[in-house]
Amino acid sequence: MAAPTGTLPLLLQWRGLILSRLVVAKRRVAAIRFSSAEAAAVSQGEPQVPGGVAPAKDSETDSGKKTFNEILAERQEQAQRTVLINCPPNFNAKAFLKYLSRHGNVQNHFFYKSKAMYAVIEFSERESITSLQEVITIPELKDEYPVPFKSRVLTLMLKKQSDLVSEHTPVQCHRQTSIPVEKLVKKLCDADSVSDQLYLLTKECQLTEENIKLRFLACSLIQDIASTYFPDCIVKPFGSSVNTFGKLGCDLDMFLELNKIGKNTIRKKTSPFNIIYQMKKAPSERIAAQRILNVIGEFLDNFGPGCEGVQKILNARCPLVRFSHQPSGLQCDLTLNNRIALKSSELLYVYGCLDSRVRALAFSIRYWAWTHGLTSSIPGAWITNFSLTMMVLFFLQQRQPPIVPTLDQLKKLADAEDKEIIEGFDCTFVSNLNKITPTSNTETLDVLLRDFFEFYGNFAFNKNSLNIRKGKEQNKPEASALHIQNPFEESLNISKNVNAAQLQRFVSLARDGAWILQQVEKHPSDSSKPWGLAALLQASDTGNVSKGFKRLSMLNSDRVKDLLNSLKM
Amino acid sequence: MAAPTGTLPLLLQWRGLILSRLVVAKRRVAAIRFSSAEAAAVSQGEPQVPGGVAPAKDSETDSGKKTFNEILAERQEQAQRTVLINCPPNFNAKAFLKYLSRHGNVQNHFFYKSKAMYAVIEFSERESITSLQEVITIPELKDEYPVPFKSRVLTLMLKKQSDLVSEHTPVQCHRQTSIPVEKLVKKLCDADSVSDQLYLLTKECQLTEENIKLRFLACSLIQDIASTYFPDCIVKPFGSSVNTFGKLGCDLDMFLELNKIGKNTIRKKTSPFNIIYQMKKAPSERIAAQRILNVIGEFLDNFGPGCEGVQKILNARCPLVRFSHQPSGLQCDLTLNNRIALKSSELLYVYGCLDSRVRALAFSIRYWAWTHGLTSSIPGAWITNFSLTMMVLFFLQQRQPPIVPTLDQLKKLADAEDKEIIEGFDCTFVSNLNKITPTSNTETLDVLLRDFFEFYGNFAFNKNSLNIRKGKEQNKPEASALHIQNPFEESLNISKNVNAAQLQRFVSLARDGAWILQQVEKHPSDSSKPWGLAALLQASDTGNVSKGFKRLSMLNSDRVKDLLNSLKM
Repeated sequence: MAAPTGTLPLLLQWRGLILSRLVVAKRRVAAIRFSSAEAAAVSQGEPQVPGGVAPAKDSETDSGKKTFNEILAERQEQAQRTVLINCPPNFNAKAFLKYLSRHGNVQNHFFYKSKAMYAVIEFSERESITSLQEVITIPELKDEYPVPFKSRVLTLMLKKQSDLVSEHTPVQCHRQTSIPVEKLVKKLCDADSVSDQLYLLTKECQLTEENIKLRFLACSLIQDIASTYFPDCIVKPFGSSVNTFGKLGCDLDMFLELNKIGKNTIRKKTSPFNIIYQMKKAPSERIAAQRILNVIGEFLDNFGPGCEGVQKILNARCPLVRFSHQPSGLQCDLTLNNRIALKSSELLYVYGCLDSRVRALAFSIRYWAWTHGLTSSIPGAWITNFSLTMMVLFFLQQRQPPIVPTLDQLKKLADAEDKEIIEGFDCTFVSNLNKITPTSNTETLDVLLRDFFEFYGNFAFNKNSLNIRKGKEQNKPEASALHIQNPFEESLNISKNVNAAQLQRFVSLARDGAWILQQVEKHPSDSSKPWGLAALLQASDTGNVSKGFKRLSMLNSDRVKDLLNSLKM
Repeated sequence: MAAPTGTLPLLLQWRGLILSRLVVAKRRVAAIRFSSAEAAAVSQGEPQVPGGVAPAKDSETDSGKKTFNEILAERQEQAQRTVLINCPPNFNAKAFLKYLSRHGNVQNHFFYKSKAMYAVIEFSERESITSLQEVITIPELKDEYPVPFKSRVLTLMLKKQSDLVSEHTPVQCHRQTSIPVEKLVKKLCDADSVSDQLYLLTKECQLTEENIKLRFLACSLIQDIASTYFPDCIVKPFGSSVNTFGKLGCDLDMFLELNKIGKNTIRKKTSPFNIIYQMKKAPSERIAAQRILNVIGEFLDNFGPGCEGVQKILNARCPLVRFSHQPSGLQCDLTLNNRIALKSSELLYVYGCLDSRVRALAFSIRYWAWTHGLTSSIPGAWITNFSLTMMVLFFLQQRQPPIVPTLDQLKKLADAEDKEIIEGFDCTFVSNLNKITPTSNTETLDVLLRDFFEFYGNFAFNKNSLNIRKGKEQNKPEASALHIQNPFEESLNISKNVNAAQLQRFVSLARDGAWILQQVEKHPSDSSKPWGLAALLQASDTGNVSKGFKRLSMLNSDRVKDLLNSLKM
């Protein structure tokens, strides 16, 4: 069955792309609340899938049993002991680390390249940074005037370059982006089974330990800036950076938490006096948020080291400041008090940690959808990564026995401390992973992948809604093409943006997928010919899927994103 | 001789007023560097003229011998131990102070009224504020959302109003503005001599101890905000607030000093590495200043408690942010790194402390000029208070023996620590007042006032320039009507703005003044009839001076200023 929209003139689609980019502010609403726009692939917090391929189910080690908030707190604390140093191309890393160790023990470090080479230096103690700062100077430049805001983003200068270059041994840089599709397909062909292919893809695409550290560091640097205004504030990453489904290169969603500021409870009940802070008042919480983000946006734009392309998108339903954090190479979206979004991230974290098949299937489905142009980093009628993840979870809830529990079951396991009502919505579910009984289902990913395609190739989208809270399909309450109930704000549909044409493409491609897997499921003798997952990713060239998808997926590249950004400006 | 411009139709003058207000940004250049626009009258730091009237020359006590920088540092430190609390109309001040003393010893306090009643509470220790802050809460308001920036501007709430109102004893509020002209004239008539009249006027108009504290507190509050960006910055008052010539109600000029930030000199010479902060760069110091002031302006506008009517005048030669600080009732101008201006303030401070006749004559001349519409709070062709002060100093340098030394003599007395070159200009002069030999001149202010008018009534303004550095008149290097050499930037004329018509009015009024003093110099038997200085202030009604000046001087009121501001908006 051919996908009907696959033959749409590309020009029209382009126009759609541009228009949808222009309305990004308004459309981002749901996307931001769930950080669905970019989230695509795996691991954070808990260890990466070890040993390369095919982990046993018990490969989730003890640290995987930490709660989401424990992981966040640990990472945040690490980030606060860390500095980011721009390094010159040729330098002696060993001597440099020795030099730094004068200020304290360097507990962890790594190098990476964004626009320049950077070193991430994690000291054991925060005090080491204070000690280091005592010898850091403000650049003295001819004809340029630095804005003297002191951050933890530093630059290393060599005094006697020639001496050092001769001694230097090449610095190993950690990759911060995914490998190209072609390379991945080639690797997949060398795997032993479809199941192994899914784990391999996950390993290649998921956030690395270093990239996660970098994301928390970026938040911590922005927190330094925000805490100049609001000393007790916290800037927290949410969405794909922390939900265990983030892929290398995805945007960094962060939010500024002010809620805990100034909740003084110590009041002398006996005193006739109360003293309160005199504060500027806004007529609504939204206007207060806009004002705060406006000022922080100005700060980032004018003083924020390495913060470029600052856009204040304050009229969006969820106002945000978007900027490129050049030192980390991350595209950032900063919002305010986005607690439901954080709770959604935690929910995905719980599901992602429960069973290694969850992330492997979700990463693979998302990657498959992306190569076929079903998803896009540009908001529009495309299906989002968050919706795809929900579809994977819903599918896994339908297995017999179920591989993951329903949200209602997770809620039943919650204890008193887990109880959380945010903006009137019940966001309660268990945070302690150890309280969740592992599934007895032992199906392989080979089976699950094929059945996923069959399941959604035949799903009655026209009348049914997916509900991961109940783990059941329900009658659609509204006319949207695709209806997936928002797990917390239950009256909302997280896939409202998807139109009938896009859904039809998904269904057609799912059917194609099931068909392809039946044809080329097994490892062929000639492994240069794509098979299994590799064949799926190349389906637009080999299968009966309409041409144009591959070209469309190329449009999703960063180059186009930049072009559209420049058009917008 | 009638002043030619005195008969200008008022309507035209109005138009001029409005236009000149609109070009304030550009015209403020010199005004800001010397804070001349508003400076008009006396005391700061050193004690107020004691005992009401007629101090003996040695009435400047020991504390008057502190250097300018010692006074500034002392006041700044005081301000940092101080909080500002908005108090409800009826409350028990005694119980309130007792309540506050739980957090530490209240070393000083006073109450005043601006838009509401405020208490200035100075603790002995800074830690007391930290202790107090532990019990301060963020206001919880229905339908209003506070921007949670915590400052030292607080609001007192009563829990059980009725209980307290019954007990309360009225709170004594300190006056923060000058008395009305009519009331002052009446008081002057009761004095014993012209000399006493000048001291009395000075006492009535000069900044009070409380008002000075309030000014330093306002700077300290703005410093709290600026130091969120630049932790080691200092916000310093300059101009009339600190030069001993400020009158009650004058604007508060402040500047943000960043220069000392990050001047690390501890560098391990042996290390091959240098680490510098990564900072945003501006192509010029001016653009850096504009960016910094822009962001601080946004902060004040959005978060600054009580900061209203924020105007960012960034295209002025000396970019500034103007705002009304409602709690202190002060109109503030914030600039950046304005070190020459601070040096000018110090120079006036030195002159003001040398001999009590200096301030008394300057206050009286400025007040006289103001009542006759020779000066204005609105920039334009009017003569400035700073120019008038320079004329007084120059006049006192001409006495035999001179009452004040020349700037070159003050420079000769300077020691190594006093050496200061700012932006290439030599701003060196002695800071230690004890090193300056007091004058042996014992002329009374009666004589000096009359001779001042005679001196300038006959001065060859057409060909000569006033030079307080040399204490000599010199050939005018340019065609400006009035030429007073800038004491530091010697190629500049601080009175460039004054046109021939305004100078002619000054000369005419000076001649009138000399004539009036000869007529009504002595205390008449009927003291209800203005005499001496009082007669001078009323000259436009009684003398041969053109009508209209009095009306013009009424235009200079704050009401008109507000009106013009609103027109501008």
